[in-house]
Amino acid sequence: MYLTRLLYVSDYNRDRPFNAAQMLKSAIAKNRANQITGALWFDGRQFIQVLEGGRHAVSETYHRIAHDERHNNIELVSCNSVTERFFPQWSMGYFGDTLTNQQTILRYSTSDKLIPNEMSPDSLLGLMMTLELKNLE
Amino acid sequence: MYLTRLLYVSDYNRDRPFNAAQMLKSAIAKNRANQITGALWFDGRQFIQVLEGGRHAVSETYHRIAHDERHNNIELVSCNSVTERFFPQWSMGYFGDTLTNQQTILRYSTSDKLIPNEMSPDSLLGLMMTLELKNLE
Amino acid sequence: MYLTRLLYVSDYNRDRPFNAAQMLKSAIAKNRANQITGALWFDGRQFIQVLEGGRHAVSETYHRIAHDERHNNIELVSCNSVTERFFPQWSMGYFGDTLTNQQTILRYSTSDKLIPNEMSPDSLLGLMMTLELKNLE
Amino acid sequence: MYLTRLLYVSDYNRDRPFNAAQMLKSAIAKNRANQITGALWFDGRQFIQVLEGGRHAVSETYHRIAHDERHNNIELVSCNSVTERFFPQWSMGYFGDTLTNQQTILRYSTSDKLIPNEMSPDSLLGLMMTLELKNLE
Amino acid sequence: MYLTRLLYVSDYNRDRPFNAAQMLKSAIAKNRANQITGALWFDGRQFIQVLEGGRHAVSETYHRIAHDERHNNIELVSCNSVTERFFPQWSMGYFGDTLTNQQTILRYSTSDKLIPNEMSPDSLLGLMMTLELKNLE
Amino acid sequence: MYLTRLLYVSDYNRDRPFNAAQMLKSAIAKNRANQITGALWFDGRQFIQVLEGGRHAVSETYHRIAHDERHNNIELVSCNSVTERFFPQWSMGYFGDTLTNQQTILRYSTSDKLIPNEMSPDSLLGLMMTLELKNLE
Amino acid sequence: MYLTRLLYVSDYNRDRPFNAAQMLKSAIAKNRANQITGALWFDGRQFIQVLEGGRHAVSETYHRIAHDERHNNIELVSCNSVTERFFPQWSMGYFGDTLTNQQTILRYSTSDKLIPNEMSPDSLLGLMMTLELKNLE
Amino acid sequence: MYLTRLLYVSDYNRDRPFNAAQMLKSAIAKNRANQITGALWFDGRQFIQVLEGGRHAVSETYHRIAHDERHNNIELVSCNSVTERFFPQWSMGYFGDTLTNQQTILRYSTSDKLIPNEMSPDSLLGLMMTLELKNLE
Amino acid sequence: MYLTRLLYVSDYNRDRPFNAAQMLKSAIAKNRANQITGALWFDGRQFIQVLEGGRHAVSETYHRIAHDERHNNIELVSCNSVTERFFPQWSMGYFGDTLTNQQTILRYSTSDKLIPNEMSPDSLLGLMMTLELKNLE
Amino acid sequence: MYLTRLLYVSDYNRDRPFNAAQMLKSAIAKNRANQITGALWFDGRQFIQVLEGGRHAVSETYHRIAHDERHNNIELVSCNSVTERFFPQWSMGYFGDTLTNQQTILRYSTSDKLIPNEMSPDSLLGLMMTLELKNLE
Ligand SMILES: Cc1cc2nc3c(=O)[nH]c(=O)nc-3n(C[C@H](O)[C@H](O)[C@H](O)COP(=O)(O)O)c2cc1C
Ligand SMILES: Cc1cc2nc3c(=O)[nH]c(=O)nc-3n(C[C@H](O)[C@H](O)[C@H](O)COP(=O)(O)O)c2cc1C
Ligand SMILES: Cc1cc2nc3c(=O)[nH]c(=O)nc-3n(C[C@H](O)[C@H](O)[C@H](O)COP(=O)(O)O)c2cc1C
Ligand SMILES: Cc1cc2nc3c(=O)[nH]c(=O)nc-3n(C[C@H](O)[C@H](O)[C@H](O)COP(=O)(O)O)c2cc1C
Ligand SMILES: Cc1cc2nc3c(=O)[nH]c(=O)nc-3n(C[C@H](O)[C@H](O)[C@H](O)COP(=O)(O)O)c2cc1C
Ligand SMILES: Cc1cc2nc3c(=O)[nH]c(=O)nc-3n(C[C@H](O)[C@H](O)[C@H](O)COP(=O)(O)O)c2cc1C
Ligand SMILES: Cc1cc2nc3c(=O)[nH]c(=O)nc-3n(C[C@H](O)[C@H](O)[C@H](O)COP(=O)(O)O)c2cc1C
Ligand SMILES: Cc1cc2nc3c(=O)[nH]c(=O)nc-3n(C[C@H](O)[C@H](O)[C@H](O)COP(=O)(O)O)c2cc1C
Ligand SMILES: Cc1cc2nc3c(=O)[nH]c(=O)nc-3n(C[C@H](O)[C@H](O)[C@H](O)COP(=O)(O)O)c2cc1C
Ligand SMILES: Cc1cc2nc3c(=O)[nH]c(=O)nc-3n(C[C@H](O)[C@H](O)[C@H](O)COP(=O)(O)O)c2cc1C
Repeated sequence: MYLTRLLYVSDYNRDRPFNAAQMLKSAIAKNRANQITGALWFDGRQFIQVLEGGRHAVSETYHRIAHDERHNNIELVSCNSVTERFFPQWSMGYFGDTLTNQQTILRYSTSDKLIPNEMSPDSLLGLMMTLELKNLE
Repeated sequence: MYLTRLLYVSDYNRDRPFNAAQMLKSAIAKNRANQITGALWFDGRQFIQVLEGGRHAVSETYHRIAHDERHNNIELVSCNSVTERFFPQWSMGYFGDTLTNQQTILRYSTSDKLIPNEMSPDSLLGLMMTLELKNLE
Repeated sequence: MYLTRLLYVSDYNRDRPFNAAQMLKSAIAKNRANQITGALWFDGRQFIQVLEGGRHAVSETYHRIAHDERHNNIELVSCNSVTERFFPQWSMGYFGDTLTNQQTILRYSTSDKLIPNEMSPDSLLGLMMTLELKNLE
Repeated sequence: MYLTRLLYVSDYNRDRPFNAAQMLKSAIAKNRANQITGALWFDGRQFIQVLEGGRHAVSETYHRIAHDERHNNIELVSCNSVTERFFPQWSMGYFGDTLTNQQTILRYSTSDKLIPNEMSPDSLLGLMMTLELKNLE
Repeated sequence: MYLTRLLYVSDYNRDRPFNAAQMLKSAIAKNRANQITGALWFDGRQFIQVLEGGRHAVSETYHRIAHDERHNNIELVSCNSVTERFFPQWSMGYFGDTLTNQQTILRYSTSDKLIPNEMSPDSLLGLMMTLELKNLE
Repeated sequence: MYLTRLLYVSDYNRDRPFNAAQMLKSAIAKNRANQITGALWFDGRQFIQVLEGGRHAVSETYHRIAHDERHNNIELVSCNSVTERFFPQWSMGYFGDTLTNQQTILRYSTSDKLIPNEMSPDSLLGLMMTLELKNLE
Repeated sequence: MYLTRLLYVSDYNRDRPFNAAQMLKSAIAKNRANQITGALWFDGRQFIQVLEGGRHAVSETYHRIAHDERHNNIELVSCNSVTERFFPQWSMGYFGDTLTNQQTILRYSTSDKLIPNEMSPDSLLGLMMTLELKNLE
Repeated sequence: MYLTRLLYVSDYNRDRPFNAAQMLKSAIAKNRANQITGALWFDGRQFIQVLEGGRHAVSETYHRIAHDERHNNIELVSCNSVTERFFPQWSMGYFGDTLTNQQTILRYSTSDKLIPNEMSPDSLLGLMMTLELKNLE
Repeated sequence: MYLTRLLYVSDYNRDRPFNAAQMLKSAIAKNRANQITGALWFDGRQFIQVLEGGRHAVSETYHRIAHDERHNNIELVSCNSVTERFFPQWSMGYFGDTLTNQQTILRYSTSDKLIPNEMSPDSLLGLMMTLELKNLE
Repeated sequence: MYLTRLLYVSDYNRDRPFNAAQMLKSAIAKNRANQITGALWFDGRQFIQVLEGGRHAVSETYHRIAHDERHNNIELVSCNSVTERFFPQWSMGYFGDTLTNQQTILRYSTSDKLIPNEMSPDSLLGLMMTLELKNLE
């Protein structure tokens, strides 16, 4: 019903085995089934994720993710009804810790060592959308 | 008098014979006579239609359409006085369920299986105008 | 789902028997069942009606009303999703052609003989809300 | 850090024993410890809850609540950074299904049988703030 | 159709006999017939007049007035479609050159000797509405 | 003094001989003398005219035009003080009933048979400015 | 023509004899003749003056004042066309260095020793209007 | 301190000898010393001048100019604190009565015979900035 | 010159002797000399201070305060040019950790244990102004 | 936490030895460590500096700079929380007194001899951003 965009941030849980490619593959499959789109930042330490979709699907997906023990210190940053998706072309886009991506971090954050749970909702969404633009070029 | 734009959504009634091309041809003829312009989405299951024209002509046309038994579960989404038409070049433009059109759906809706009566007025008009732009290119 | 407000205007059809009190009583009963609120102006010649409620209920009620032969020349003036109702306390408020009400007409219209289908959406809603205020005092 | 307001809706899970007074007492204790304020609607069938506080505390509390099996079909409606709390005086205010409260429902929703997961973020927050006002009077 | 407000200014033509009370009486009668409302300033030298009503009635009345030889140097200052009338209670209100009225002039004009055709549309409408307020008190 | 833009609409009076080219030539001459600019639509049945210039010159010219028996049913649509002219390059531009021009009509009006006195001020000015743009190309 | 408001600041010239009451009396007489209104601050060291009236009268008066050798270091702070006067009741209001007035200074300035030529246009007009309000009470 | 922009208009005083080139040369020298920038219109009859610079320098320069007997009927049109200059590249730009410049006049004024003291502040600044743009091309 | 408002937050340095009343008395004396106004929150652990005054005085005072070893972890939160002071009546208002004041904290912060350097500029200024209002009542 | 932008101005202290290149090299090293970005103007007499980064890092850096005896008369101009940095690519950009840079000064200031502590926050930030643009070209 209500098209919804949610953004959260979290810390990678070093105590759990984690395979980014594999997790992404399974997430993309699930998201496709749930009509979720979005993008994920992972730099080996931190996650930033945008989820877009129906209010129910976004909630259900987020609740699953929020209890995934592969990350912790999860902070829900923002969630709102929106008119259109910002990441419609990606079941889950992925921004790794490449040089190009790193240069964008400092523009939106207080440090080039990303500490997402200290960033404002506007800076976090600005960062994710600038990364999308750079990666679509 | 008052230039008016109306948008409604509905479900195709599988119990009635329906020939899209023929219906469109007759609708275009009637709309031309009534000075109605607009666009129609039909994907075999659902309709989204924008009607633009005089307040009286739009009302009269809509009332006829609303009692057409070839569709049901009709929901009037929005109706307003406007300064100019958004679809002046089409007596009734048509967006079928092509690949190009399908890619635009997800941008404005919670699912790639269009459920128009769960979409907001802004998302529905945004969808129809993006489809127009893509099809005019 | 989408809380919706609709306003239409129409002419009383003199060829049909019409009993305002009776029609209102039955409308109020139906509206209560459909969770519709609103207000109706009737001065012996013209109707102005506001319907508020769920998008589906408002559409269904409007389609019924639009085919009621007790009025004709029905013009749909405006229909929009809204955050709150303006007439929550009335299953269907009624403004008859009293002196008090008549004085308000001229403020919003080009004539003290109301010709609603020549009035703008803003003037019509302004009129109905001013009448509500006066009648709640 | 970031003062945050979150609103979610859910259905009461009839399969679980539930004691509103007891739950509230324990929630208030926990919220006081976590510096959470807010308000809860419960009418025997549905919940609407606003949580206000630090981003981390709101997230942590919400994650706990979202996995509480006493309700289900939980939908996160909105979450945002804000300048000030709207319910600072309540560790968790409570609106039961009283007559006074019921009259406010219809103003913001499509039905007097509250179906919160069909309501827009603005209507839901409007409802909760109007209830607060009425109950502070 | 289009509710319209027009404001013009003119000079009294000293070469013609002029009886304000009589003219006003006849104007009020005609305006009542034409559903025109408004207000007139006359100080023995200058006229400022606001006409409100249907676009056609305002035009027709204005064209008649514009060719009335009892005044000349007529300047049409502003004419616009509006949502509601500002002078609904007066078929033609009248502001003479009383002390109370004179004090309001200087607030909106460059001189206490009113020279309306040197005044801006906003100042002229502000003057007429302030005079209305003072005279309704 | 006050730079002013006026727009009116009228019907061609079939009972009077009318030569568009000749009228235009004389109007342009007079307008040049009066520093009036603007544009005129004439399609054999209807006139739409924009006049720009000093408040006094626009009024005087309009009063003359309003009493010209070659047209009737004249409606003054809008008149306002403005910062700059929109048609500075034309003493009186002319839009005839060409194919190109006709296609623009439907965008701003309820019918391709122009009925200007049923059009809103915004639609009429939008139409005249779009025609100007097309004709300057 | 153009109703204009001007604000300037200056230093009292100690080398010239100066009698505030006498100057004010003569200024008020001249302003009444020129249809100027406004207010003057004088604290024995500094002047702040607002002049309101016709563009020509304000200019002419200001030019005279600007060459008056009883003050110097004159800075023109702001001058603009306006819809209405802010000091219509005073041919020239006067704010001396009373206790009441002094308390208002600090609110708008960097020091309780007024240095007007270091103050912004907004702070200076805010100061003069707050003084007017206090002195009208 | 406060970066200030001032615009005034005046009439050439035919009783005084006047050499535009010489005056401009000396004005440019003085302005350069006073850090004044701006532009001057002179067409043999009228002046329009914009002065930009520090509040004190603009005031002092304006006071000198206002007492220069080579022009009279000087009207101060506008004076305000601004964030940046609009004519930074010119110690005093000059727009003479060339054909190119003349065509711009009618766009902003009621007549191609410039009567600046009948023009609004917005029209005058619009004129000067359009002339600058045309002359920088 | 530029009237300026600055807000900073800091931690009380427990290693230094500190006497609030004495510090305040001396601060008030210095501020009066420097024409500084403002307000200070001190609850035994944290400081929030607003300084208002001339840009130079505020800077100079702030630099002194920033090197005062009685507090540390000083964070400059905001500094801006403003039109008027918000605390003109206090050379340095003081809000201690009273019950009344404490209730206001939670409204603007994530915890009733004030952690000012985690609060946004808007929340901090909102808190200080609400405290002022409560203490002026 | 809070991404912050600060701008201050100061005078070069001629009594201290100063080596711009060396200072800059050390500043850049420190800023890189503190994740500070920004830009510095130095023309041999005056400094303007923008610092961007975390609120704590900006404060700590600014406090150090504010006590550096190589400059004095330091005025803090503005400090605010922001969504993104304006100088992300420079640990400390440098604008010397080149011809190109000098031409930009007059656009934002009252004199080509920069007196930054007499400039408004908007003019100073406008100047620094225009210099950045010119130097990135
Ligand atoms: C950082 C992160 C991001 C994830 N993103 C998604 C996602 O976008 N969609 C999704 O379905 N699961 C995502 N997952 C996986 C879920 O947390 C969960 O493991 C998965 O949905 C399977 O859930 P289930 O085991 O309850 O079926 C993500 C996990 C992590 C750690
Ligand atoms: C999805 C749909 C869209 C339609 N669009 C139009 C239309 O744009 N204009 C129109 O005149 N009729 C349209 N029609 C046909 C009308 O519903 C109706 O059949 C037609 O106007 C003939 O009406 P009548 O049988 O009452 O003369 C549409 C029908 C359907 C099912
Ligand atoms: C002016 C007018 C207003 C009406 N308003 C309502 C209304 O608010 N609600 C409603 O249910 N029916 C209303 N009705 C009656 C309907 O048109 C219709 O007669 C009624 O819903 C019964 O429909 P049915 O015969 O299809 O069951 C109105 C009728 C008229 C003429
Ligand atoms: C509708 C509803 C609202 C609740 N509200 C709160 C609340 O505001 N704060 C809270 O701490 N727990 C709340 N709870 C209880 C939590 O879900 C959970 O039971 C509680 O925090 C204990 O969590 P734990 O068992 O993981 O310690 C709520 C539960 C329900 C069903
Ligand atoms: C200053 C002034 C104001 C007038 N106001 C009105 C008016 O409001 N309504 C009106 O019908 N006639 C008004 N008139 C009178 C008309 O100009 C005209 O004389 C009258 O409408 C009779 O027109 P007729 O002789 O063409 O029938 C006014 C005349 C003057 C001089
Ligand atoms: C549709 C129409 C447009 C006209 N436009 C103008 C015009 O722009 N300027 C003008 O001076 N006269 C215009 N005229 C002519 C005037 O109505 C009038 O005939 C002309 O100004 C001569 O007026 P006079 O006979 O009073 O001198 C127009 C006439 C018509 C019918
Ligand atoms: C601070 C100050 C304020 C003045 N205000 C006014 C004023 O408001 N109106 C006015 O006509 N003269 C005012 N004057 C007096 C004029 O400067 C001038 O002396 C007076 O207009 C006589 O001018 P004249 O000698 O050229 O005739 C003021 C003078 C001073 C020093
Ligand atoms: C239309 C006009 C524009 C002028 N513009 C300037 C100018 O921009 N800057 C300037 O210093 N003088 C300008 N002057 C000259 C001054 O009015 C004055 O003659 C000159 O500053 C010398 O002043 P002084 O004789 O008092 O030294 C202008 C004069 C006129 C008539
Ligand atoms: C929390 C706090 C607030 C202060 N507020 C002020 C103040 O408002 N004004 C002031 O002049 N000094 C204030 N001071 C004192 C200054 O830090 C400093 O001790 C004082 O200005 C004396 O400075 P000096 O020793 O350099 O002369 C404050 C100190 C602290 C710790
Ligand atoms: C104009 C000016 C700009 C400066 N900019 C910076 C800067 O951006 N970052 C920085 O760390 N130090 C900057 N410094 C140097 C500091 O003032 C200080 O000398 C330096 O941080 C070393 O501090 P410390 O001696 O306390 O370690 C600047 C100094 C001056 C005079």
